Amino acid sequence: MIDQLIEAIVAKQNPTCVGLDTSFDYLPDEMKEGVCSFEGAAEAILAFNKGIVDAVCDLVPAVKVQIAYYEMYGEEGLKAFRETCAYAKEKGLFVIADCKRNDIGSTASCYAKAYLGETSIGDKAIEAFPADMLTVNGYLGSDGILPFTAECEKGNKGIFVLVKTSNPSGDEIQNLKLEDGRTIYELMGEMVEKWGESTIGKYGYSAVGAVVGATKPEEAKRLRGELRHTFFLIPGYGAQGANAAMLKNCFDENGIGGIVNNSRGILCAYRKKGGTYAEAARAAVVEMQKDLSSTIGVMQCAK
Amino acid sequence: MIDQLIEAIVAKQNPTCVGLDTSFDYLPDEMKEGVCSFEGAAEAILAFNKGIVDAVCDLVPAVKVQIAYYEMYGEEGLKAFRETCAYAKEKGLFVIADCKRNDIGSTASCYAKAYLGETSIGDKAIEAFPADMLTVNGYLGSDGILPFTAECEKGNKGIFVLVKTSNPSGDEIQNLKLEDGRTIYELMGEMVEKWGESTIGKYGYSAVGAVVGATKPEEAKRLRGELRHTFFLIPGYGAQGANAAMLKNCFDENGIGGIVNNSRGILCAYRKKGGTYAEAARAAVVEMQKDLSSTIGVMQCAK
Repeated sequence: MIDQLIEAIVAKQNPTCVGLDTSFDYLPDEMKEGVCSFEGAAEAILAFNKGIVDAVCDLVPAVKVQIAYYEMYGEEGLKAFRETCAYAKEKGLFVIADCKRNDIGSTASCYAKAYLGETSIGDKAIEAFPADMLTVNGYLGSDGILPFTAECEKGNKGIFVLVKTSNPSGDEIQNLKLEDGRTIYELMGEMVEKWGESTIGKYGYSAVGAVVGATKPEEAKRLRGELRHTFFLIPGYGAQGANAAMLKNCFDENGIGGIVNNSRGILCAYRKKGGTYAEAARAAVVEMQKDLSSTIGVMQCAK
Repeated sequence: MIDQLIEAIVAKQNPTCVGLDTSFDYLPDEMKEGVCSFEGAAEAILAFNKGIVDAVCDLVPAVKVQIAYYEMYGEEGLKAFRETCAYAKEKGLFVIADCKRNDIGSTASCYAKAYLGETSIGDKAIEAFPADMLTVNGYLGSDGILPFTAECEKGNKGIFVLVKTSNPSGDEIQNLKLEDGRTIYELMGEMVEKWGESTIGKYGYSAVGAVVGATKPEEAKRLRGELRHTFFLIPGYGAQGANAAMLKNCFDENGIGGIVNNSRGILCAYRKKGGTYAEAARAAVVEMQKDLSSTIGVMQCAK
């Protein structure tokens, strides 16, 4: 999966991931009009997402779908989440389910089946939510992560473990120093490298990636240096305040090693740029691609 | 909410929480027969859960519903999750949604609405999943937690933050020492105390509780001593290996301060004890109540 994702990034010369953190509020007024139920909201969000996917699918390699924005509409929202993932895959995009799941082993294996595998019922196996990659939280340690890596190996999927998050308070815990001088985020990064050891692909990156905020350039630089086999999912560009220069250090000498998420900056571009929301999203992606390329340079598949 | 939960524990002299981590595999054969779809599995799980709730609702104060076991059946599973929560509430039980959610502030506020509040659509506000309390993961720091505490204050709800988890690998990260000598779990515990400061109720406990594994008696003892206003959700009793003696130190001098979860030991009791699954679950709860009371003593509402 990670090899194919890297190949898609290189083919499109674009490490942009479109974040479908689709708040109902983001929709143009005409799509919200008269909606007064979870079913109606979920349908409107799905229609909006399809418009975004259609507008950008030839330009970007992946979407990240933030499940919280769907859970708030109950099971109807989850249906829209599933259909959004399925539609993006149909259009050739990689789908990152941003769920930050975490639990003890037996429970983690349920989550792993839900997002990366299949659920068995009698002699049938059915896919619940069709994602290629899933974000997870490593606070519970190895036995909470290994059920996910097992599913990655089985189905050629991937995960991203939270290492250094993009939010201001991320530092409160993650940047504290351990008695041996490492920070907590560095420790988590080292565990990610270890969890990925058995799934390193042909470009040197494993199926176990890390979430590393673009808003934290110093930490990102350090992590890029230390975690040679860890691919980064990089949130924080745009609305959260990071620019291309801040995330240059997330990439290796071949211009690969990370994918940069932008949600509001693309979904809500129409409010600043005018035009339809789809046209504006496409224009925002084109602009972001230029911005990232000018900093990262040419991306190439090499080990 | 925490006051009412404590009052229910004292009224029933039982700090047992029944874990509805209802794996489809746990169901008696006759309930699984012929089921070959998510819809069928979800309906069977819901029917099983209702049987458990009916069998134990006069004996226990609360249920904990582990959402991973529902997500693996897609939106049909989530419907069963919602209906399980609603049914338990109807029967007078407190509902802990065990979701371990976590994200940056804007996204955390979606989760908070989904499980503890309401989702606004136009001028309507609708409840997505009807829980009283929610488990969360604090790795992202304060701005990932405050949206949940805001919802707790608004709607008299509660959260439990992962502090010291019950799984074997929980130690890998949580027990590491910081340069000032504290462990990471102690640091997380201190943050929990701080996050709960503004919601301390009449028995001295706040709306912000902690998950503290019964399998970790040393850590639990230390945390109980340090976190005077933090109510504990205590997993690990039974199938995970902890007994009543191991969790005595989770309770204060009034016999309150925690609620002890048991999932498999109750849901699957019928396999060991015979009888219907509901009868066996009730018997297992009676036995657990005796076991806990004999160690904890009389529980009383006092500050």
